[in-house]
Amino acid sequence: MNKQQLIDQIRQKRSFLCVGLDTDIKKIPPHLTETESPIFAFNKAIIDATAPYCVAYKPNLAFYESLGVEGMKAFEHTVRYLRKYYPQHFVIADAKRGDIGNTSAMYARTFFEEYDVDSLTVAPYMGEDSVTPFLGYEGKWVILLALTSNPGSKDFQLFADSEGQRLFEKVIIKSKEWAGPDRMMYVVGATRGEMFKDIRRLAPDHFLLVPGVGAQGGSLEEVCKYGMNKDCGLLVNSSRGIIYASNGEDFAEAAASSASKLQLQMKEILDQAKF
Amino acid sequence: MNKQQLIDQIRQKRSFLCVGLDTDIKKIPPHLTETESPIFAFNKAIIDATAPYCVAYKPNLAFYESLGVEGMKAFEHTVRYLRKYYPQHFVIADAKRGDIGNTSAMYARTFFEEYDVDSLTVAPYMGEDSVTPFLGYEGKWVILLALTSNPGSKDFQLFADSEGQRLFEKVIIKSKEWAGPDRMMYVVGATRGEMFKDIRRLAPDHFLLVPGVGAQGGSLEEVCKYGMNKDCGLLVNSSRGIIYASNGEDFAEAAASSASKLQLQMKEILDQAKF
Repeated sequence: MNKQQLIDQIRQKRSFLCVGLDTDIKKIPPHLTETESPIFAFNKAIIDATAPYCVAYKPNLAFYESLGVEGMKAFEHTVRYLRKYYPQHFVIADAKRGDIGNTSAMYARTFFEEYDVDSLTVAPYMGEDSVTPFLGYEGKWVILLALTSNPGSKDFQLFADSEGQRLFEKVIIKSKEWAGPDRMMYVVGATRGEMFKDIRRLAPDHFLLVPGVGAQGGSLEEVCKYGMNKDCGLLVNSSRGIIYASNGEDFAEAAASSASKLQLQMKEILDQAKF
Repeated sequence: MNKQQLIDQIRQKRSFLCVGLDTDIKKIPPHLTETESPIFAFNKAIIDATAPYCVAYKPNLAFYESLGVEGMKAFEHTVRYLRKYYPQHFVIADAKRGDIGNTSAMYARTFFEEYDVDSLTVAPYMGEDSVTPFLGYEGKWVILLALTSNPGSKDFQLFADSEGQRLFEKVIIKSKEWAGPDRMMYVVGATRGEMFKDIRRLAPDHFLLVPGVGAQGGSLEEVCKYGMNKDCGLLVNSSRGIIYASNGEDFAEAAASSASKLQLQMKEILDQAKF
């Protein structure tokens, strides 16, 4: 999916919501655990229920890998289901990969050719040749970690040089040499409020993937106030608040209701911004 | 495996060689591709042939994930085979993971409980809560990326603050607050020669996992000159130079011969150091 198509989706649906498919076998409703593939059954129901309210899905690989071979099958089935029935939703494999060149090239083939997702989250620590192998695919995206939402983000990401330039800023500046806003997005945690201003100075035209609204305490309004650009430029992720809205047989309806609430807030914000 | 057991293995075998199982389906000998599980068949033969010459094995997850479910089965079988027949070899899952706390906890369970490897490579970008979930397992290790061997390592890892402290140094200093040399190792690329001196000033007692000898151009002698400590303190990895030493039916013998050559060089170095 290219940038204009993503913008069009946001405009039509009045939503920039990404639903995080952090599907934990220990948290899904008990009645599903008896099905043949409980993780996929759960995801399928969540997707069918929330698709009208979101523009993206983000399965977090850790949750699938933790179940070994069965988990990876569920990941594969989920992505295939999305590609087939919801081809206009943007699919993010949240894998936070990054390795030496030939290894990153291998990950790129896996995620972009085998699984055919639209984008992959990538960790920047190893620098240029760990990121560029992901950039050679038409319509596919790198979503590079810049300023994350977790407490540990302060340990290294805020590390500053003699001129006050911080690591997350360095990551944005440097990575802009590798690709523009048509191939690269950045992860910026919702818990970072005013820091979005600093990010937007460096990356005015990029989409930002924003985790941390909801369970981690970030505010949607604050994120939009400082982070929105002329294209909207935001994909705001919510995982637990949507997919575990209920633990009963009504889990899918509850997820739809949670997603719909967020979509309504987003619609209001987009309307106000005359987007 | 604890630190003393690892040191004992090195002392007995006169080797600190780690064999990197970067098994690429496109590079294994043609006669194996007709077997039911070519990747596992290749790994098994390589392991049986090289076990006398090395103390560790390091499968790189990218190579297994790139084959989807079949690849992950091959990874699982490889680790199980090592645990069963070579319980005294240290097993490193080279996965370069690192995510927010609850996700890292999930990866920790996967690799340390499901797969039962001894250690996992972890990327430090997201800070403390992305690393500490891996530290709660007795006899299991985090191998944290510090200064890698690839060209892109200079992009961020050498970024310095106003006092000249570089990011890789910051990573070592900070992470020492989370665990000592009995639970943590660092990745330091062999291409970094004299920089091992700087690393040893900060981490005199830690084991260092050293990729980049051979194919990537690092020198074993230089690494040992600057990097060895009283416990040896090094695990030097070689992948392509060993596992692809021959592409014929003699691939396992050729791998044994390559590994044995490196082991002899290591023996000499250990003897000279009176270890």
